[in-house]
Amino acid sequence: MTMHEANIVVFLANLLTILLSARIFGEAAERWGQPAVLGELLGGVVLGFGFFSFFHPNDPALTLMAEFGVILLLFETGINSDLSELLRVGPVSLAVACVGMLVPFALGYGIMALSGRGGMEGVFVGAALTATSVGITARVLSDMGKIKTPEAQIILGAAVIDDILGIILLSTLQAVAASGTFAWTAAARTALLAVMFLALALWLGPRLSRSLVGWVERMRGRGILITSAVCFAFALALLAHAVGTALIVGAFTAGALLAGTDKREDIDGALKPLADVFVPIFFVMVGAKVRLSEYNPFIPGNLGMIGLAAALVVLAVGGKLASGWAVRTSGLNRWRVGIGMIPRGEVGLIFAQIGLASGMIGFSLYAAVVGMVVVTTFLAPPLLRRAFS
Amino acid sequence: MTMHEANIVVFLANLLTILLSARIFGEAAERWGQPAVLGELLGGVVLGFGFFSFFHPNDPALTLMAEFGVILLLFETGINSDLSELLRVGPVSLAVACVGMLVPFALGYGIMALSGRGGMEGVFVGAALTATSVGITARVLSDMGKIKTPEAQIILGAAVIDDILGIILLSTLQAVAASGTFAWTAAARTALLAVMFLALALWLGPRLSRSLVGWVERMRGRGILITSAVCFAFALALLAHAVGTALIVGAFTAGALLAGTDKREDIDGALKPLADVFVPIFFVMVGAKVRLSEYNPFIPGNLGMIGLAAALVVLAVGGKLASGWAVRTSGLNRWRVGIGMIPRGEVGLIFAQIGLASGMIGFSLYAAVVGMVVVTTFLAPPLLRRAFS
Repeated sequence: MTMHEANIVVFLANLLTILLSARIFGEAAERWGQPAVLGELLGGVVLGFGFFSFFHPNDPALTLMAEFGVILLLFETGINSDLSELLRVGPVSLAVACVGMLVPFALGYGIMALSGRGGMEGVFVGAALTATSVGITARVLSDMGKIKTPEAQIILGAAVIDDILGIILLSTLQAVAASGTFAWTAAARTALLAVMFLALALWLGPRLSRSLVGWVERMRGRGILITSAVCFAFALALLAHAVGTALIVGAFTAGALLAGTDKREDIDGALKPLADVFVPIFFVMVGAKVRLSEYNPFIPGNLGMIGLAAALVVLAVGGKLASGWAVRTSGLNRWRVGIGMIPRGEVGLIFAQIGLASGMIGFSLYAAVVGMVVVTTFLAPPLLRRAFS
Repeated sequence: MTMHEANIVVFLANLLTILLSARIFGEAAERWGQPAVLGELLGGVVLGFGFFSFFHPNDPALTLMAEFGVILLLFETGINSDLSELLRVGPVSLAVACVGMLVPFALGYGIMALSGRGGMEGVFVGAALTATSVGITARVLSDMGKIKTPEAQIILGAAVIDDILGIILLSTLQAVAASGTFAWTAAARTALLAVMFLALALWLGPRLSRSLVGWVERMRGRGILITSAVCFAFALALLAHAVGTALIVGAFTAGALLAGTDKREDIDGALKPLADVFVPIFFVMVGAKVRLSEYNPFIPGNLGMIGLAAALVVLAVGGKLASGWAVRTSGLNRWRVGIGMIPRGEVGLIFAQIGLASGMIGFSLYAAVVGMVVVTTFLAPPLLRRAFS
């Protein structure tokens, strides 16, 4: 009836379309023995073709819902993690994260330098290869009920560390792109704050979350547990952002802290329907940002880019598989860990977008990096499923 | 880190602030023996003072979340309704809705005509008095566990009919405001379509919803029941909009249809956490749109408007109380029905906003109408609580 009502109608139509695509393609994927998340990504690719005039892959309201979804996903992943197990595997995760960043970076920079395009172009391609999207791996392992295996905990820890290191790398690259100079002090400050955030959260957290639960139990009215839990996740996400690390790191930490309380089961049960509705939006929107037409080999000029993309995929997979060999504990499956680190997801896309926006990489290189991100993201779910079953 | 990340940070900060205000003020209201929704409205008023620079009462993303919340609320209300009971009380609800629209309209037009301001001004004030916000009443009765009493079902039916008639009245007034002429054919067409929508939904619905549930049961993967239920609600809301009635009418109908299936309990349980998080956003945002400073009697020129607002409140309450006397069934409490029809809520605000935007009413009259809407909305929860306890 009014402008105002028109907005909500378009928003509802988009949500309906996204949720139905996620359901239909997710269902099809499951029936073919693939993880549902692969179907949701594909559903997004199909929506991205533009069948519906009201759907835009960069719609601001849908982007917010997708971000909301990934925050809920990491919160849920945290609740289903075992904090003491995470701390126990901490050193292994750190080793995996470091190898999983250094090897891909070196390979990416190397191939660019070999073709005479080192410098900033090489740095950006290398940086995009370092990313790990914890979302994809967490979703597949959570759907399979394998989130509490030691390998899964190592991957989750490594992916969180990878995210923190990635954020530091990204903010450093942005500063370099903006000023033309590399600022060691700013990079060191960001890193220190992120480490302090995690250390403080892990030290204060268990006491804080238990007294929070006790406080919540004395309140009345409906829906207190779930709203309080969601508020806790938002607060820690914002706190993480305020000290210079990523929102999802805070959401994951909030979940891991609540996992140590006696309300864990109740919170997880109430969080499930929320995650069921919002998490698929994230994966559909990641899929929708892929434009297949850019990879048509019959369009002149695309062939070189496709070749580079293929080379990057090989390096991206190999580099992350190498990280599995950072696990020195016997009895653990190194392939599982390496495969879990493969998907670049939204983190890789953010690197590519910032490189393009800052003028550090051209459009052809951007398309190659996006292609690498998409292939690694689509490759991981079936590989993970096979490795963990 | 980017524009994109800045948006989600502001969005999360807003959600956190809104949810915390809703919790704190809702808790305070409960401890004073008042319904939580009253506290949420008050929490919104306090947020509207502008303590937080990032919070804006008309923020588009938050407005969408509020609309999403009211759709979930009406869906939940529908699931907790008894369709056969609703149909049984249908004729009574129709009588209540008609009296509850005609008497307030006549009183509102009358007071304007008496002060020499009949015509379009009188029509708009009368129209704003006809509104009933089913949200407030549904929330209070649902929190009290009284949603299945005969009086509650009569109120819900009457409020839904009131909404449909209100939409027809509103679209007619908009057409008059736009063209300067009254179009009977357009009004009749809107009315006919709305009636056909409901009739078709009630006729086809039970079979459709049961076969839908059967279909959903054969699907795999996680979260199928809740995503399918939410999709069904969105689809019916959009269908209702497409045929010219309100989104919330469709959401309510979807809920009422699913109430007749054997998955009712499961859907209701999974919907609860979603509603717990999003419904309070709606009430906080309604409260946040109130600007108390406009009602400061020490500001010159405000006194006449405040007097008119007070008179409108008396007429608004009296006119809707009269609707309770349309109930001719013995053994039912007419006060309960009348009180349940009192809150104008967002529907009354929409009338006022359209009147102001189209230039049909001036700012002082707008402030008086908004004052009437706010007072009736805040008055209803405690009165309802007393009437139903």
